Amino acid sequence: MSRIKIYNARILPMTEDTAIIDGGVLTVEDDRISYVGDGSDEPEGVQYDREIDAKGNLVMPGFKNSHTHSGMTFLRSFADDLPLDRWLNEAIFPREARLQDDDIYWCTKLAIMEYLTSGVTACFDMYLRPYEIARASEECGFRMVQTGSMNNFSQSLELQEEWYNELNDKNPLTSYLFGYHAEYTCSKELLEGLARLADRYKAPVWGHNSETENEVKGCLERYGLTPTEFADSLGLFAYGGGGYHCVYLSDNDIEIFKKRGLHIVTNPGSNTKLASGIAPISKYMRAGIDIAIGTDGPASNNCLDMFREMFLVTGLAKLHDMDASSVDANEVLKMATVGGARAMGLDDCDCLAKGKAADLIILDLDKPEMQPLNNISKNVVYSGSKADVKLTMVAGRVLYEDGRFSLGEDPDRIKKEVSRVIERMRDI
Amino acid sequence: MSRIKIYNARILPMTEDTAIIDGGVLTVEDDRISYVGDGSDEPEGVQYDREIDAKGNLVMPGFKNSHTHSGMTFLRSFADDLPLDRWLNEAIFPREARLQDDDIYWCTKLAIMEYLTSGVTACFDMYLRPYEIARASEECGFRMVQTGSMNNFSQSLELQEEWYNELNDKNPLTSYLFGYHAEYTCSKELLEGLARLADRYKAPVWGHNSETENEVKGCLERYGLTPTEFADSLGLFAYGGGGYHCVYLSDNDIEIFKKRGLHIVTNPGSNTKLASGIAPISKYMRAGIDIAIGTDGPASNNCLDMFREMFLVTGLAKLHDMDASSVDANEVLKMATVGGARAMGLDDCDCLAKGKAADLIILDLDKPEMQPLNNISKNVVYSGSKADVKLTMVAGRVLYEDGRFSLGEDPDRIKKEVSRVIERMRDI
Repeated sequence: MSRIKIYNARILPMTEDTAIIDGGVLTVEDDRISYVGDGSDEPEGVQYDREIDAKGNLVMPGFKNSHTHSGMTFLRSFADDLPLDRWLNEAIFPREARLQDDDIYWCTKLAIMEYLTSGVTACFDMYLRPYEIARASEECGFRMVQTGSMNNFSQSLELQEEWYNELNDKNPLTSYLFGYHAEYTCSKELLEGLARLADRYKAPVWGHNSETENEVKGCLERYGLTPTEFADSLGLFAYGGGGYHCVYLSDNDIEIFKKRGLHIVTNPGSNTKLASGIAPISKYMRAGIDIAIGTDGPASNNCLDMFREMFLVTGLAKLHDMDASSVDANEVLKMATVGGARAMGLDDCDCLAKGKAADLIILDLDKPEMQPLNNISKNVVYSGSKADVKLTMVAGRVLYEDGRFSLGEDPDRIKKEVSRVIERMRDI
Repeated sequence: MSRIKIYNARILPMTEDTAIIDGGVLTVEDDRISYVGDGSDEPEGVQYDREIDAKGNLVMPGFKNSHTHSGMTFLRSFADDLPLDRWLNEAIFPREARLQDDDIYWCTKLAIMEYLTSGVTACFDMYLRPYEIARASEECGFRMVQTGSMNNFSQSLELQEEWYNELNDKNPLTSYLFGYHAEYTCSKELLEGLARLADRYKAPVWGHNSETENEVKGCLERYGLTPTEFADSLGLFAYGGGGYHCVYLSDNDIEIFKKRGLHIVTNPGSNTKLASGIAPISKYMRAGIDIAIGTDGPASNNCLDMFREMFLVTGLAKLHDMDASSVDANEVLKMATVGGARAMGLDDCDCLAKGKAADLIILDLDKPEMQPLNNISKNVVYSGSKADVKLTMVAGRVLYEDGRFSLGEDPDRIKKEVSRVIERMRDI
């Protein structure tokens, strides 16, 4: 059994009580947290393999990146500042079509490196070749929930069912949820089939939803229903799930999200860079819907940085509402941790408490941008950056610390392999 | 004479030709660049005090933070998520009124530390007690252009003239330009006096301008003119200058900016967090106005991070125009370097060329978020972060390298002194 003790810390557990524990102690046994507190009732006589002096730094749950396409790292900065249709059809699709299993394996590993530098301990990934993504994640020790990106041209109901059965309950780090790419890339029959699958397994369903005004308009033209209404009318949400982006939900959509217990994953960086629009987050919050935050993929964002996303969630809400008091920073922290864990079905990864998964980060409060310590959680959201991440632990293993990775793989090799992927198809 | 050579670099000089020099060499003599190129015509037989192997990393001009209030670091995260009037009147003003000379000296030094971590080599600062700000900057070796924040309650024409004479041409690192806080805090008589001062010295004038809709509305009510029209009607802009924020310039304001050669300093982080609005940057660009970028102060932003600002300049423009092709990343890099230097009157600090000031940064291209190297300048703007800053050099001196500061001052003392400032007035 591996035992780690972190002491002399400020601990932000993100349990119902959001107070920070000063001079806190947190202990880990294997992949679980065995103690969180001020040390006064800490179990005695335990021998630790490692004791980490956190020196007054902040220990908090890792961020959950709740929507991403990790395997797209090879396309970062490949085709920016283009209108959406040219970006997709000229730059992205022709290259994705040439991806091999191994390409996605390496590209996912590069994304995992970046996640770790940004304090991300779990991702909700939607991409191609789920076995390769699971293999890359398990080898790195990273937690990955996948969902299908099924559409008329790629993946299928049969494959989704296979993946659902093969990728759940096999490795504690990886799991799989049903998903479709989006209404506009799926036939009605395909989505009806997915609803039957969801019913058979009593399982939630995920998909891109109302990312752009055009998407909603197209669905209204096709079916006289919004993407949310349409999916719900097919029974896709009978067992929950949710939507990525959700920039343009109608009042009735919001009612459906409430009634079905659906989650919204907001992606402000991508919605900004692709000029999709600003999601009305404060309205969704008032409706009581669970919200999580995702970076979207590295081809559209272009970085996989939860600090940037957190600032954008509150910043864009303030602009949208023209109200500087909209969406308090503490609400953003909840979305980035608890909200993400709930969306992804990672009930053990939401907060720091005894018995929960040891998925946590240590932030350096000694950096100039974190000083003075007037309000630590607001510092994290408003002035924090990946430069503050000292340590990232997933399932009790330290995968990143002081700029160094422990992934069982040479980081230089990962970067070289990804460069090779794009070199092979740069000029097609 | 001190001589430094940087070799094996990728160099982005930001001269008219924006191409990157691969395998580049840059040499520094004292505070100036003595050579930039591919090394084939490098001066021979020179003995260097230090040779830096840049290992394929990016060498580029340092960022110019063209609008900030450095001394406000003590108020970071002190009062966020409040409406603007409560934030100013309840949290900020009462505490600023109690600041002593020494307080501003220490708070400025903390800001300088943060600037250096974000690759900033010069600031355009508007705050109180300019002698203390100049002293802090000179001691750190940091380049600081100050401007007045004169208003009906603070500073005066006499003080501005004294500072103008005392703080220019004394130390190559520090200078002073005439400035007023904003139209709405200054009487017409005060601004007329400033126009006379500008005329006497043939000097540019700076001020906050059209930051909020209310500001423009108030000025129209008072004078029947916009803030730009009003200032221009008084002769304030006879010798140039410019405005900070400029979120709500009218078409006629834009004409005045063009005619007078005024600069726009955009502050997207602060305009977002304070819910002021989105500046129409692409419109200003089309009009051919010089644009620079600033963080604004740490009480409103809350961080002093040019990477965040650069992403926001292009991201918010894309949202404003609902066009993903708005404001190319390369234009943003120009604003953050060349545009800032021009605004601040730092003609020698705009780009990397022989004879220019040795104000430069080295960015680590080996970080996961900078890989693969599909487009380096887009990587800097879209996925770059302060975590990528390896080295920051101002006037030929390395002030920050690999997380360590060389400021002639113990960084821990700086943080302690700033904490003491806010502790003293936390509960007033």
